[in-house]
This record gives sequence, C-alpha cells and structure tokens, in this order.
Amino acid sequence: MAMSTTPARPMRADARRNRDRLVSEARASFAAHGTDASLEDIARRAGVGIGTLYRHFPNRHALMNAVFQDALTDLLDRSRVLAHAEQPCAALVEWLGAIVAHAGEYRGLAQALMSASADETSALTSCHVPLRQAGERLLSRARTSGSVRADVSIDDLLRLTNAIALATEQAPADPALAGRLLRLALHGLKADPADPRPSSPLGG
Amino acid sequence: MAMSTTPARPMRADARRNRDRLVSEARASFAAHGTDASLEDIARRAGVGIGTLYRHFPNRHALMNAVFQDALTDLLDRSRVLAHAEQPCAALVEWLGAIVAHAGEYRGLAQALMSASADETSALTSCHVPLRQAGERLLSRARTSGSVRADVSIDDLLRLTNAIALATEQAPADPALAGRLLRLALHGLKADPADPRPSSPLGG
Repeated sequence: MAMSTTPARPMRADARRNRDRLVSEARASFAAHGTDASLEDIARRAGVGIGTLYRHFPNRHALMNAVFQDALTDLLDRSRVLAHAEQPCAALVEWLGAIVAHAGEYRGLAQALMSASADETSALTSCHVPLRQAGERLLSRARTSGSVRADVSIDDLLRLTNAIALATEQAPADPALAGRLLRLALHGLKADPADPRPSSPLGG
Repeated sequence: MAMSTTPARPMRADARRNRDRLVSEARASFAAHGTDASLEDIARRAGVGIGTLYRHFPNRHALMNAVFQDALTDLLDRSRVLAHAEQPCAALVEWLGAIVAHAGEYRGLAQALMSASADETSALTSCHVPLRQAGERLLSRARTSGSVRADVSIDDLLRLTNAIALATEQAPADPALAGRLLRLALHGLKADPADPRPSSPLGG
C-alpha cells in the first residue's frame, strides 16, 4: 500500500495507463472544481476503482503533486532562463508572477502549497523543495546585484507569493489583482522620492 | 426567522442573556478550534438549543460578526488615535499590523474577511465596511503627506493584509512572520539606495 508514485520497477503498461488517466481526470476536475474535488468522481471518470487511485496516489497531496508536475517543469525551466536576465530583480518578480498564475489554475492549490511549506511530510514537498531552490537562486542573484534588500528571505517571499495567489483566488472578478498585489509587494507602500510615479487609474 | 442581530425592540432580559452567553461561548470555541467550530457545541455550552442560536444568529458569519465586535471597536478606536500620528505612513502600517494581530486570534477569520470583502450580502460586511473606511482615512492622510504611493488602493492593501494574516495562520511556529511580511509589503523588495539598511538576521 505504501507504493511510491515513482516506483523503482517500471510500471506495467496497464498500470501506467491507469495512472495517466487518473492524472488527466484529476487535472480536469481540479481545474473545474478546485483541488478539493471528489476523488471518487476522479476514479470513476478514469474508469478505475477508488482502490486503484489510492494505490497510485496514497493521498490527495500525492495526486495534486502529479497534476502540478507540468507547471513545476515550466516554472523550473523559466527560472533557468531568468537566471541570465539583465535585471535580476525584475526577473525574480516575473518568476513570482508565474507562480501566482500557475497556482490560479487550480483553486485550493495556493492554500495547499502554503500548508505544505510548513509540513515536510506532505507529498507536495517534492514540488516545494525545487521551487524554493530555483527561487533562492534568483533571489541570491538579485541580492548580489544590490537590487534587492538583504533582509528578504526566499521563504518569506514564497509565503507572500502564495498569500497573493490565495487573495487572487478569492476575487475572481478582478483578474488584474494578482499583478497589482505583486507590484505592491515589489515596490512597497512608500513613495519613492527618486522615482515619482504618476497616479495610476488603479489607485483609490 | 429573519430576526436581525440588532433588533429595533429592546431584547427581553432572558433573550439578552442567551445572546451574551452564545457570543461568549463562540468566542472561546473560535479561539480554540477556529471559526469553523461546531455551532451545535457552542449552543450546548451556552445552555440553549441550536434553534435559539439560529434565532439570534441566522448564520455563522453573523455569529463571527458578533464575536469580532470587540476587535472591531479596538481597531476603529486605534484608527482615530493614529489619524493624528506624526508619521502617517508608519501609522497606517501600525494599524494594518493590528488587523493581522486580531485576525490571528481566531483561525479562519482572515479567510472569512477575505471572502466577505467580495460578498456584500455577508453578515461580515458590517465589520468590513467600517474597517475599510477607517483604513481609507489613514491611507488618504499618508498619500496626501506624500509618504505613500498614489497608486495603492485601500482595497488592495486590506486584501494584502488579510493574505498576510492567512499566511501567518499557516505558520504557527513562526510568530515573527506577520511582522516580516508586513515589513516586506511596506518596504518592497527593492534595495533603497537612499536608505541602506543593514543586513538583518532575518534574511536568508
């Protein structure tokens, strides 16, 4: 029963096909109904029993982890490209924006990633750890270039990013919110006397 | 059944006593178990039936609204004092910090306030509206003094504050997190060449 989602032995063809179907149906269900979608429904749509689902994915976080692999790959690829960008601070913020966008694909994911970051036993930790490493590289580079304050840690930055993703999720009628909140967290609240910005239509 | 929580007629003494007991038990239960604590348990501890609870509080948000009145009064009082503070930006941030602290008293409240801000029919709107007005006054003053950027709106600032409260709630082992995330949102990510801050032990 404690079968890993990445077994050492190659999976039999039918087991592999069941697993692929489960991930595919989970992706559709999570996108439509959020990450608290019924696992029974997902198994039924994939044409397997709930026992088969649990043999492949011992819990909901394990299934979410599998669904999030495409997004994870995209985020890690992007971080490698952005590590060579001319403006390290802008590169970091662009990457945090991509996390918010991906988290928004599945309602509940931001909350799950947030709780997983504080729980090393979660199956989502295998998403969180490489994300954190990629973010740390971008942040280090921005810090070294002097464009980011020295007292900002990657953990706090990812927590704030997840929090922004969560706030965005609660306001589906306001698709520009994520960008505004990220910009707020980037620029801070204070007026910058060296760079007076014109009042934007977003302001109150 | 659509009895208001603030009836036009004075409440009978026994009804008032039941209501006070319900609020008192709800406060204790929400603090111990979060704002999704069982309403049946709250009624039982208050020594009344669930029907009596629902007559006073037609839904969970109405009960949360009653529990949050002390905190709301404190936040509104503070905003009036802070409206005369010498540094309008620091005053605004101190007030946002007080919101995070109060939200942290009851797990689930930040999430509820966040969803209520997008739902005018929620009973929690009667908390959100005066909070928003008080925040707008502090923000206006900071904006007029030139210490806060013109493109920051009170709605976005309260959403970010709620998001920070939520992130804080997920990391109970890190009591300093709320302060760090608020400071991050206040100062922004960028190094300020006019005000080089020493590297703090909080940084990575």
